[in-house]
Amino acid sequence: MNNLKIGIIGAGSAVFSMRIISDLCKMPKLSGSHVVLMDIDEARLRNTGILANELSRVFGANLKIETTTDMTKVIDGADFVINTAMAGGHSYLDKVREIGEKHGYYRGIDAQNYNFVSDYLNLTNWNQFSLFLKIAKMIEKFAPNAWYLQAANPVFEGTTLVSTQTSIKMVGFCHGHYAVESLANLIGVKEYDWQVGGVNHGIWLTKFTTKDGKDLYPEIDKYKGKIQHKPSNPFDDQLSPVAWDMYDFYGLFPIGDTVRNSTWKYHRDLETKKRWYGEPWGGADSELGWKWYVEQLYKVVEIINQFATAIENGLTLEKVKDSMNLMPWLEDDWKNMVNELLDSEKLSGEQHVPFIDSVVNGTKRRFVVNMINKGKIKGIDDDVAVEICAWVSGENIEFEETHLPERVINWYIKPRVLLAKQALEAFLKKDTKLVADIIERDWRTKSSEQVKKLIDELYPFVIAEMKKIIEN
Amino acid sequence: MNNLKIGIIGAGSAVFSMRIISDLCKMPKLSGSHVVLMDIDEARLRNTGILANELSRVFGANLKIETTTDMTKVIDGADFVINTAMAGGHSYLDKVREIGEKHGYYRGIDAQNYNFVSDYLNLTNWNQFSLFLKIAKMIEKFAPNAWYLQAANPVFEGTTLVSTQTSIKMVGFCHGHYAVESLANLIGVKEYDWQVGGVNHGIWLTKFTTKDGKDLYPEIDKYKGKIQHKPSNPFDDQLSPVAWDMYDFYGLFPIGDTVRNSTWKYHRDLETKKRWYGEPWGGADSELGWKWYVEQLYKVVEIINQFATAIENGLTLEKVKDSMNLMPWLEDDWKNMVNELLDSEKLSGEQHVPFIDSVVNGTKRRFVVNMINKGKIKGIDDDVAVEICAWVSGENIEFEETHLPERVINWYIKPRVLLAKQALEAFLKKDTKLVADIIERDWRTKSSEQVKKLIDELYPFVIAEMKKIIEN
Repeated sequence: MNNLKIGIIGAGSAVFSMRIISDLCKMPKLSGSHVVLMDIDEARLRNTGILANELSRVFGANLKIETTTDMTKVIDGADFVINTAMAGGHSYLDKVREIGEKHGYYRGIDAQNYNFVSDYLNLTNWNQFSLFLKIAKMIEKFAPNAWYLQAANPVFEGTTLVSTQTSIKMVGFCHGHYAVESLANLIGVKEYDWQVGGVNHGIWLTKFTTKDGKDLYPEIDKYKGKIQHKPSNPFDDQLSPVAWDMYDFYGLFPIGDTVRNSTWKYHRDLETKKRWYGEPWGGADSELGWKWYVEQLYKVVEIINQFATAIENGLTLEKVKDSMNLMPWLEDDWKNMVNELLDSEKLSGEQHVPFIDSVVNGTKRRFVVNMINKGKIKGIDDDVAVEICAWVSGENIEFEETHLPERVINWYIKPRVLLAKQALEAFLKKDTKLVADIIERDWRTKSSEQVKKLIDELYPFVIAEMKKIIEN
Repeated sequence: MNNLKIGIIGAGSAVFSMRIISDLCKMPKLSGSHVVLMDIDEARLRNTGILANELSRVFGANLKIETTTDMTKVIDGADFVINTAMAGGHSYLDKVREIGEKHGYYRGIDAQNYNFVSDYLNLTNWNQFSLFLKIAKMIEKFAPNAWYLQAANPVFEGTTLVSTQTSIKMVGFCHGHYAVESLANLIGVKEYDWQVGGVNHGIWLTKFTTKDGKDLYPEIDKYKGKIQHKPSNPFDDQLSPVAWDMYDFYGLFPIGDTVRNSTWKYHRDLETKKRWYGEPWGGADSELGWKWYVEQLYKVVEIINQFATAIENGLTLEKVKDSMNLMPWLEDDWKNMVNELLDSEKLSGEQHVPFIDSVVNGTKRRFVVNMINKGKIKGIDDDVAVEICAWVSGENIEFEETHLPERVINWYIKPRVLLAKQALEAFLKKDTKLVADIIERDWRTKSSEQVKKLIDELYPFVIAEMKKIIEN
């Protein structure tokens, strides 16, 4: 039992929330925590609440689950605030991309060298940046000792923004580093040491050895040019030709979403994307790959809704698990998820709850965190967030010494950091002239007239949506 | 009288050499110096020699003039080596630009954001970079205490390259900062204090005050939007709409060739250039402006040749001066130049000779120098050359405290520095894959196939020309 208050903002993201809740249920020392789920979508929030209570019941975790649409209630007195919310949701992403494409900017203006992930806007997401700051400033006021754990994208810009504009304790989390497993599977090792480092969605395999220190990169090299990559889904790109080509150029293997994030060389058009990321989708960030993803998301909402309704009507998660083989309509991914959620031995893989446990109960664990650099990785500006391996125990965080080669620093990190800083300055000053300067340098721009028309149509919308966040 | 040995590499650039020689003639303490003129173009070198001797005679400067095509002879035992040579000459510039344009790269691939000056290549000038290093390494060997004064472009990359790759004493010189006068003339002040800083061809008016410290920027502001700019020649751009637009965006006035060096916004095509730099040329770096310039250069060679021949046949510079009003074919610029060369009270404005005098004779003077940063200007990487105001007396150089605003640092200097570093790395490693990465991100690139074809045609030529420099 404890007196922890843990808030989840954007809890309508049911799968993420279930993973967090089930992790909480499986950590005995976090039993009894007060969990406040917040979302502005009441229907989805309600479903999450039902499932959360059911999970707590199954595990006897005695969580005190509360749902609210009021952000103050989540934050006031919280010990940890997890944010997974996406301001404006997918319809916002669609809209800004649509306006961009109308003016000649394929995949929207946020698609830029070193930043192609489709829900990782940094030029048009003034609503999302405003939400980050709103939460952070509310934490400063109502829960100044709380940790703010940000899962919402863009983690790089978001962590940088909040860490430089407020004084709260913050860490950004992503799970891209799990993709190291793909490389381990490729070369057939089960036990290995690894390290990644860089900036979020721009991380590199800085260490990959056997347990007794033998470098495993030569093992990877044996597969160079020998893999026939056939992606099983649009996100299956860790061994795609892009990853190998990036490895060849940058000298280290790019890990996780980094593979989605290099230059226009791989993204110029659908044909190019298909060539590099594989048929039929051309990667997660093509028009086809992203459509696939969004359809999955809508399916998830529907299935969650069905689960929640069934549970409300008396079904239990145990029964769901026992009778899943009678549900031919349920995809394997879902069956696996239910099995994992209910497997008391298995954590979700999200880092948030183990991090909370390590901070609260002092259990030393290794994490991949996003925190402001301040000298942690040489060659990267001090005032931006790095993604780095760290050992956490209580409030003590030890960062692993992480070395990135000059090629990665000068040909990837520096231009990426520059883009982030310029994007954040444009947001902080609400200055579309700065955005225009970026777009003037964009390869898709044919004239200043085009830039002007784009800005004139896009930014009134961006600003209106931002105001909704600020004023609500 | 003294024992100084001063070498000029690229002395076939007769106008530049005459300015240097006449300055030497006018500095009594440098009288008697041994001046070695070197060029690979023997005819032009011979003309320079004739004119140099004539200048020395006119002033009774007793310079010991020597001409040679052998670089060792210039450098061996020299105290100062001035380099103004352009490897490959204008035909090289034409050729690489032509290949670039053939593959769809308007004004050649070296034209990039923040680098549009047409004889300021940094991607295709491996011959020029090799020449810089060849000279510097020869100085290391044969004249280790000599100062290397580089006038040849690219001064930014060249100074950075030589300063990081060799241990010689080096300074890069440009005269862009004289353009401050245009602003002084505009607002009608004759006495004023000024300071510029940044990187070569990327310098900014960091101080502009009356002699008693009153800021003169508000005086400039009065002319904002009120100037009808009609350029008198393609280089007349200090008060062009570009300069004002850059001032508006970057917050400081761009000085000299900086105005030629911002983004594609001003350079996208001839029409755009004309709109920003003015009719009829569209600035110095358009196809029209550059043609004008090259024609001037050829005219200069011809006039120099006529002068030299006449002097060889017994005419004197004094007589030329006295009878210039009888030469209707001689343009005013030339008449002014002859008058200035012969005016014992007036120095050319080139900084080289005053710098030599300050170093040798300890006369403290102010210069605008290009030297490796190492903390001189905050916000700029330590390992690149900055252009900065400095006071020189003997070997002692005091750099003025120079502050650039974040807008200039983050939106101009940083991307410019990144380009320089990437370009220099490509050269040092002779790695066309690095060039390809830059070109993949270029707005003119439509496909990787285009990049490949460009590189395949361009770089065998670039490398062959480089080898000529290395092997000769």
